[in-house]
Amino acid sequence: MRFVIIGGDAAGMSAASRAGRLRRDMEIIVFEQTHDVSYSACGMPYNIGDPEASMESLVVRRAEDFREKQGIDLRTGHRVDMIDRGKHIISGEKENGEPFECGYDKLLIATGASSIVPEVPGITNDGVYFLKDLRDGRMIRNYLETGSVKKAVILGMGYIALEMADALRKRGVHVTMVKPRKRLLPWLNEELSHVIVDELEKNGVELYPGHSVDTIEKTGSGLTVVCDDRSFECQLVIPAVGVKPNSGIAAAAGLDLDDFGAISVDRRGRTNDPDIYAAGDCADAFSVVTGSKVWVPLALHANRSGRVAGENICGMDTTLKGIACSAVFKVFELEVARAGINPAEARAAGFDPLEVVIASRSRAHGHPGNKTIHVAMTGDKKTGRLLGVQMAGAEGVAHRIHSFAVALHNSMSAEDFWQADLAYAPPFGPVWDPLLTAAGQLLRKSE
Amino acid sequence: MRFVIIGGDAAGMSAASRAGRLRRDMEIIVFEQTHDVSYSACGMPYNIGDPEASMESLVVRRAEDFREKQGIDLRTGHRVDMIDRGKHIISGEKENGEPFECGYDKLLIATGASSIVPEVPGITNDGVYFLKDLRDGRMIRNYLETGSVKKAVILGMGYIALEMADALRKRGVHVTMVKPRKRLLPWLNEELSHVIVDELEKNGVELYPGHSVDTIEKTGSGLTVVCDDRSFECQLVIPAVGVKPNSGIAAAAGLDLDDFGAISVDRRGRTNDPDIYAAGDCADAFSVVTGSKVWVPLALHANRSGRVAGENICGMDTTLKGIACSAVFKVFELEVARAGINPAEARAAGFDPLEVVIASRSRAHGHPGNKTIHVAMTGDKKTGRLLGVQMAGAEGVAHRIHSFAVALHNSMSAEDFWQADLAYAPPFGPVWDPLLTAAGQLLRKSE
Repeated sequence: MRFVIIGGDAAGMSAASRAGRLRRDMEIIVFEQTHDVSYSACGMPYNIGDPEASMESLVVRRAEDFREKQGIDLRTGHRVDMIDRGKHIISGEKENGEPFECGYDKLLIATGASSIVPEVPGITNDGVYFLKDLRDGRMIRNYLETGSVKKAVILGMGYIALEMADALRKRGVHVTMVKPRKRLLPWLNEELSHVIVDELEKNGVELYPGHSVDTIEKTGSGLTVVCDDRSFECQLVIPAVGVKPNSGIAAAAGLDLDDFGAISVDRRGRTNDPDIYAAGDCADAFSVVTGSKVWVPLALHANRSGRVAGENICGMDTTLKGIACSAVFKVFELEVARAGINPAEARAAGFDPLEVVIASRSRAHGHPGNKTIHVAMTGDKKTGRLLGVQMAGAEGVAHRIHSFAVALHNSMSAEDFWQADLAYAPPFGPVWDPLLTAAGQLLRKSE
Repeated sequence: MRFVIIGGDAAGMSAASRAGRLRRDMEIIVFEQTHDVSYSACGMPYNIGDPEASMESLVVRRAEDFREKQGIDLRTGHRVDMIDRGKHIISGEKENGEPFECGYDKLLIATGASSIVPEVPGITNDGVYFLKDLRDGRMIRNYLETGSVKKAVILGMGYIALEMADALRKRGVHVTMVKPRKRLLPWLNEELSHVIVDELEKNGVELYPGHSVDTIEKTGSGLTVVCDDRSFECQLVIPAVGVKPNSGIAAAAGLDLDDFGAISVDRRGRTNDPDIYAAGDCADAFSVVTGSKVWVPLALHANRSGRVAGENICGMDTTLKGIACSAVFKVFELEVARAGINPAEARAAGFDPLEVVIASRSRAHGHPGNKTIHVAMTGDKKTGRLLGVQMAGAEGVAHRIHSFAVALHNSMSAEDFWQADLAYAPPFGPVWDPLLTAAGQLLRKSE
């Protein structure tokens, strides 16, 4: 049996590795259009912010390792353009322009996501860099190392935009962030949003929300980002307005997409074609909160869904329980995390949301070095069930979110979560953990 | 209705506060033998280690605040010696020697725990200090501030012993730790135990396990701790060999105790007398893992069980879901945490335990500042259910344990936990969180 995988990053290589271990008799061929496989894409902004780092330190395993140590037929520099479902053949082009094709018994699409390219004149100018794969990361690092970048403009204010603002400030670059909408991270509770804005401004990031970019002009000294009522001179522009699933070849082959444009898969990672699976950022998932389909392109689910697809292709029967939409990022000294859904999403999903917003502490009463932890927690008024949480603070946020994610996986009520026996010691939190305090307030508010 | 509370610390004052808010018509009287109520007892070792701190910073709320702001009749300097269940009267002695008595409709016993006093000649000598309440903490601070303490001997190697070793080293005191048994923290996996021993030795703590103390002699320069084959000169001895529940008056009144000597309570916090409740360190609890009674004197459960007892006394019907035996402490740069039970406890409880021990990382591949996180995870072979975990590492341990505690509250299997959507970002962990990796290995080991 031949198992063909399109895309050799997190999901693709997880599937290949798992299948290779489960069925040594199986022929596994992976087609990857770049030459980078298995690297920490999420590490790129942090890497760029560190003058001492090398982009190559993000490589977890090289293509040769997969070939030599795991016996996986990994073909880099191969771009797949078409799936012929009738003939069970995929075809594409090598980087030298030569066409290729390959038959499959089972196919996994793990083509990932790509940066959304804003429709702005000048977006293809020199000095405009997207950050999606390791090639992009290397280019930005190299450009910064020329020493010619004094000012940068970032388009967008999402995770990657914020991480890049932090990275560029660490490299001494002046940063302006521009986005059309007024609100930074619109999914975030407004009070918490202000905490992030304060942190950005404290670190010298210039924010320019509520304005759209008309054009990016090439000038003598570099670039000019022209907005409706102001212009910004700079040497570097990073568009980071979001990503979209690479589902084009799936759609062309008649596979079902969801409302997000991602490839629709069942809990086993299978598309509407029983011989074709999809995993990672190109595919969707089930929310453990709503039970509905969601599309959240993040690393852990990419790895896990790839692995599970590999297992099912090998004849195991593994179901994906779904995702809690957990995420965390660091911006300067602030940790920001979320899990589940916010009140607006809850209403849209038919819940009757109740939200509490509290400020608690990161250490016990009287313990030095105490920092504020902000928590916005949402529950369902009718059932008492927890629906989501958002947190921001200078310490103790990143791993606390895990406990709430596990609570969501178990559909816990605020009442039951309030009773959770979380570990306490003075350097690590108050006796009543911030999440327990928030759950307690949610309980009282619903009484 | 009159609600009388014996003991004005975490459990007692939580009950009083909650009842006071729920039923303004209720007469609430609290008898506390010391003058300290509502303070961070767990903060004392950390406070002692900080030359700049004041012990008074650990006071969360003063007796006057409870009296004036919450209208609670809080009688400090009152030691309760007897409960007459037939007459519904408690009696005792004020600090001036005057006797007192007080009738009750409902009674809460929240007498806490006290240090075990080792049967060693000289244990009452000057320079021997126990650390249990704020008076003890003040005395140790004052003694250290005389500058005469150069060397200290700690008897025991549990949480408090380790925290005190850390604190005294921070104050420049030479520390020797002596205990009869060979193993430090016998409940801890042996590999993890070595990690702690290394940390102690790296920080100049002298360990002398496997030896018992024969006597503590008073000498010209201070004290000599005489062991079977060696003696230690010092100016300070801290016995920290454990605590025991203060259940004497309960036992004398014919209330049921459990095998640990703690007051036996049901899930509503009630003893075998329907008018008498017990909460906090003097009472027991149900384990969410085994369903059996456990006695774990820790702050969060003390607060929560006091609060729940207060609710039930006010006519609400709140049940305690039980504890996961979660705990965390810091010793020098190391965070050590646990939740649930270890393989030996699992076997004793009738499970068929399976353990994996792994070393993972605190940050993503290629992210600077990576530290090792050691994990020992136990599951049940028959059912796949998770039973317990222990972790040690220089960062990222303290709050990670929370997610596992929540998993235990939900009786999750390793398989389900492996699917938990934990938040990932490079500064905070690998893509596969150390706990997910351990759960995955547990799964494979049980296949």
